[in-house]
Amino acid sequence: MSAYPNTAATDVVTASADPACAEPLPVLGRDVTVPLVTGGEVTYAALDYAASAPALQRVWDDVAAYAPYYGSVHRGAGYLSQLSTDLFEQSRATVAGFLDCRPSDQVVFTRSTTDSLNLLAAVLPADCQVFVFETEHHASLLPWGNAQVTYLNAPRTPAQAVETLERALAAREPYGSALVCVTGASNVTGELWPVKELAAAAHAHGARIVLDAAQLAPHHPVSVQELDVDWVAFSGHKLYAPFGSGVLAGRADWLQRAEPYLAGGGASRKVARRADGGVDVEWHTTAARHEAGSPNVIGVYSIASACKALTEAGFEGLVARERHLIAKVREGLAQVPAVRILSLFGDDSPSRSAGGTPTRVGVISFVVDGWNSSHFAAALSAEYGIGVRDGLFCAHPLVRTLLGSEPQAQGECGAPEAAPGERSLNAIRVSFGAGTPDEHVDRFVGAVKELVADGAKWQYRTEEGRCVPAV
Amino acid sequence: MSAYPNTAATDVVTASADPACAEPLPVLGRDVTVPLVTGGEVTYAALDYAASAPALQRVWDDVAAYAPYYGSVHRGAGYLSQLSTDLFEQSRATVAGFLDCRPSDQVVFTRSTTDSLNLLAAVLPADCQVFVFETEHHASLLPWGNAQVTYLNAPRTPAQAVETLERALAAREPYGSALVCVTGASNVTGELWPVKELAAAAHAHGARIVLDAAQLAPHHPVSVQELDVDWVAFSGHKLYAPFGSGVLAGRADWLQRAEPYLAGGGASRKVARRADGGVDVEWHTTAARHEAGSPNVIGVYSIASACKALTEAGFEGLVARERHLIAKVREGLAQVPAVRILSLFGDDSPSRSAGGTPTRVGVISFVVDGWNSSHFAAALSAEYGIGVRDGLFCAHPLVRTLLGSEPQAQGECGAPEAAPGERSLNAIRVSFGAGTPDEHVDRFVGAVKELVADGAKWQYRTEEGRCVPAV
Repeated sequence: MSAYPNTAATDVVTASADPACAEPLPVLGRDVTVPLVTGGEVTYAALDYAASAPALQRVWDDVAAYAPYYGSVHRGAGYLSQLSTDLFEQSRATVAGFLDCRPSDQVVFTRSTTDSLNLLAAVLPADCQVFVFETEHHASLLPWGNAQVTYLNAPRTPAQAVETLERALAAREPYGSALVCVTGASNVTGELWPVKELAAAAHAHGARIVLDAAQLAPHHPVSVQELDVDWVAFSGHKLYAPFGSGVLAGRADWLQRAEPYLAGGGASRKVARRADGGVDVEWHTTAARHEAGSPNVIGVYSIASACKALTEAGFEGLVARERHLIAKVREGLAQVPAVRILSLFGDDSPSRSAGGTPTRVGVISFVVDGWNSSHFAAALSAEYGIGVRDGLFCAHPLVRTLLGSEPQAQGECGAPEAAPGERSLNAIRVSFGAGTPDEHVDRFVGAVKELVADGAKWQYRTEEGRCVPAV
Repeated sequence: MSAYPNTAATDVVTASADPACAEPLPVLGRDVTVPLVTGGEVTYAALDYAASAPALQRVWDDVAAYAPYYGSVHRGAGYLSQLSTDLFEQSRATVAGFLDCRPSDQVVFTRSTTDSLNLLAAVLPADCQVFVFETEHHASLLPWGNAQVTYLNAPRTPAQAVETLERALAAREPYGSALVCVTGASNVTGELWPVKELAAAAHAHGARIVLDAAQLAPHHPVSVQELDVDWVAFSGHKLYAPFGSGVLAGRADWLQRAEPYLAGGGASRKVARRADGGVDVEWHTTAARHEAGSPNVIGVYSIASACKALTEAGFEGLVARERHLIAKVREGLAQVPAVRILSLFGDDSPSRSAGGTPTRVGVISFVVDGWNSSHFAAALSAEYGIGVRDGLFCAHPLVRTLLGSEPQAQGECGAPEAAPGERSLNAIRVSFGAGTPDEHVDRFVGAVKELVADGAKWQYRTEEGRCVPAV
């Protein structure tokens, strides 16, 4: 008898040969082979897209074509500087289009979602109250240090999320500004959050809302205007563009009023000594205000390239293909009673089948009865060439809620394993996307079945916190 | 008669065929051709290295070889994640070696020098006083918003810089911590600053010192231990690695004690709800404390690759080659009386010829009597395919001091030009480095002579703040 509700057997979209989802998009690394501890090599199955996705081949090709033309942006007089400046600002427009921004919105380039949300935290009005569910990734949970933060308990249905937020906003002091921060798709369960409803609730109570689209944007179209969110943040490295850039896009007013996020060149329009020996600075009010220092042109251009590539491939087909892969994984895991998929909203969530709308992205976390999760993940890598992630996924409170346990340091990864029925301290996450071929998820499902049935073929030990094959 | 002292005719190292400096290092874009407004195409002469240098071919090749193996660092269980994690941490060690750090130093990866200095500003002890020369780049001048900053007047010799600092430090309240921030090489004049002497002065007065090595590290070896600086900051994009990463390296104590620069995953070791509804966070004390979010592995690896490439090429030869190029430019410009090179320390600076030690890097700013600098730079680009920079170089107070004028918005770039003898509002900067062939500086010198003698061949006009050829 398991400690977790088995949610793997339901909510299954039958895997089918959908003509809309014939081929994955080409990505870098698709032919990379890795050694197996049991001998030989195998092509690497990258199933950790939720941490970092491989670069789309198209993105790489665009970057490689541009790289010889790289130049400083904004002030160089040379041809390559002007070309690079144009490319940089065109990339800003491409991202604004990709997100369906309002004409008055600003697109600020950052280094990641984490950076984007830290930027937003830095520009909050002084009296701003922040509302955030405890189920968020640490990037959404932790940046609000100086603000008054209300952490909301984990809801167990999308409707409960909206109710919880409404109750909290109604109870707040009826003055001052407020911000709600919410994920579009959980980085642990892959479940979609009712962003549009949460945005409506926030606005009804005079609050603003920022969407953490780190896990959503790579999988689904995101329309700022349709969702009616005030800001959206996402990362290049999860959007097939791993070149160190991210995005914060949305309302300009708070951004324009605040002190620059970074002080330096590019953000400053005019700097002069004062008669009293101090320094006067006039800052830009455009996005440049928060982009001091030489911009990461290649990172920014790679995001624009990915936006174009996904748009041109068509989200309809990408979503259909991802549903097909999700179904394969969930059908396969449902056949293994020892596997328990982690779910916050459960499978009877009323939002799940509304009009066939997808309710999750290709991010699935689970535990295996009788297995230490790190051990299981290490065996998937060493014996099958499959890259997944184990741990708490930078969402400790959420994973604790899902596991029903206090997360602690994981024990040794070798024998003795946790006895069947014992609670896991960690989980295993498999995640995939536009570049994933069927073979990767098929291999993954087969490997899970084999490991559970036959055990690992090799011995493992803990080394510097990693579970590794014993040699 | 010019308004500026002509410093171009002295301090000339005769250009010679030094066997140590035979060939430039291969860089991306070396074969790129650009159109000329006068017809035809020409290979692009990238002479704006001080803003952004082209990628070394070796750096690009390393990045291209790694890109298919890209994976999330620090927590993924897969082979590529572990490979990427190892590469990331090896890169940290490579940078520590490149900078000759103390064993106890931390190397924190940032996005740029600007970011590095903003990070350091964020970790200053509460009572810290900051001392900075008004001659610094805005990235060094502006980040210290919350600290008590003393701006020091521009010194006119290296010795005066040390005296000025000593006097200011001696006058400070004799308690609390203090930080001096100083550039290693000016981004306007290319002149080297007496970093070792300034460090000694700082330490003698109980202050710490951070070296802005953005313009120094690409040109000269930097030894943290020999210079005895507490921190050093530099950018990848000026070090032939334009992939969005930078470095802050040095003393761990202030870094470890301060709140994390960014709040989020990666920086947090453990996060848990408290009974009162709040959230407890335990932060890392390693460099990860200030590196929240998914690290820019490609950016970091590219910096390590550049460090290795420069070390293997040998700074002795690189410095010799750069002196040869500097001499060519200065000899050439000295033959044009209308050209005035900007210099802070002047040519009778006692440090300049000590033991033949270089006193500048390949960064030279100048004005041309009778020419609007933007117009001149636009003509160099449009008629000769030469990319330089015009403006105030994110160092407004310094350029104001050097020009002896109040910087203002530049006028229209076309006729009527400033009359001979009239003060310029902007300057022109030519800069180069390890990838620069002789032909680029030869073409530049020839173009300057021709433009001054014959004028521009084309008409120019101002468009969106840029001086562009009229069509």
